[in-house]
Amino acid sequence: MRHVFKDSATAFNGQKKATIKGKGEINAHLTSLLMTYLNESGTPTHFIEQDAAGQIITDHLQMFPLEVVVRNKVAGSLAKRLQVKEGDPILPPLVEWFLKDDPKNDPQVSLGILEGIFGYSKKDLTEIEALALEVNKKLKSLFLKANLDLVDFKLEMGRNQKGVIVVGDEITPDTCRLWDSKTQEKLDKDRFRFELGDLMEGYREIEKRLKGVLSQ
Amino acid sequence: MRHVFKDSATAFNGQKKATIKGKGEINAHLTSLLMTYLNESGTPTHFIEQDAAGQIITDHLQMFPLEVVVRNKVAGSLAKRLQVKEGDPILPPLVEWFLKDDPKNDPQVSLGILEGIFGYSKKDLTEIEALALEVNKKLKSLFLKANLDLVDFKLEMGRNQKGVIVVGDEITPDTCRLWDSKTQEKLDKDRFRFELGDLMEGYREIEKRLKGVLSQ
Repeated sequence: MRHVFKDSATAFNGQKKATIKGKGEINAHLTSLLMTYLNESGTPTHFIEQDAAGQIITDHLQMFPLEVVVRNKVAGSLAKRLQVKEGDPILPPLVEWFLKDDPKNDPQVSLGILEGIFGYSKKDLTEIEALALEVNKKLKSLFLKANLDLVDFKLEMGRNQKGVIVVGDEITPDTCRLWDSKTQEKLDKDRFRFELGDLMEGYREIEKRLKGVLSQ
Repeated sequence: MRHVFKDSATAFNGQKKATIKGKGEINAHLTSLLMTYLNESGTPTHFIEQDAAGQIITDHLQMFPLEVVVRNKVAGSLAKRLQVKEGDPILPPLVEWFLKDDPKNDPQVSLGILEGIFGYSKKDLTEIEALALEVNKKLKSLFLKANLDLVDFKLEMGRNQKGVIVVGDEITPDTCRLWDSKTQEKLDKDRFRFELGDLMEGYREIEKRLKGVLSQ
């Protein structure tokens, strides 16, 4: 399958929208770098190759209609809801689950709800959770070498034709919170959400540092 | 310790209030019946004895600031939030967690949040969850003998002076959803919340049936 990455940016359930030139191209490249890294280190993703700017070629997956979020530090909605300090560490890392279901407004769910109400098997959920935590462990150390804190990120997963559960969708600063390890400057999509500075500047900085680390 | 049960009823975070004569007395008696049943079947609670109407004597516990909810069927806020049908079965039963923390508005949390952010030990959480599910198993079959479906219920737990985690607080139709097994008529506090009929009539019906079953 061919995925084309768009230059459009949205936030707050589509209430904030913009077109940001070059975002699609950099996100395709970052997904390519990160998924290649995962594939080569034995963590399966749908990524096959990048043969053109702004696009990637992937395996076809049967997707789980889920978003799996892994959190290493408190940020965003969680800080607000629990009234805890943004940046506080979460140990062990927290896995959160959301239905991808527009009519229901993508509600947050739990493993118990997925199993007891929506008929997921414990086996699949255990595999998905283990895969999410494995991705977290690998990307967290990779980003740390680039002086970036992986605060939290969202994954989508599916089953490939061999029946193996693998990482699908994208891995980009649209789906990861990435802060400079020293200054805690936000280099990810929160720049767009909260007008914290030029988005492309943050994304380019991430790309530059990642390329530096991966070429070592 | 002596607990006095009040005749006051509240709902919707205290927005709806009333005094219902006799509710305190019947709730003390129901807690006494149910906790005696649990104690005698080997599931520890703080209940010691009832020596006067509307009151019970209990062990002193160091309480966890948590509400633990067990759900066997979809009802209430869960049905609304997930847009699933009230009455749908949940298998296996679902355990949900809420902080008892007024300034934070008692937010729903997960095992991961309790461990990773609020410092609960995995050991305590595993014990609390197992105890909640044990109470559910016993009360569900007890109520079923009385032709009552235990739809969901809330527990609070604490550690007694021997260091054992036991059930505290109360077990009453204020804290349990109980539906007639055949007609699915609601006999619990939802009668008050949603004006479904005389509250005391429901509570008295539960008491009558429970006494019948326990005297066998």
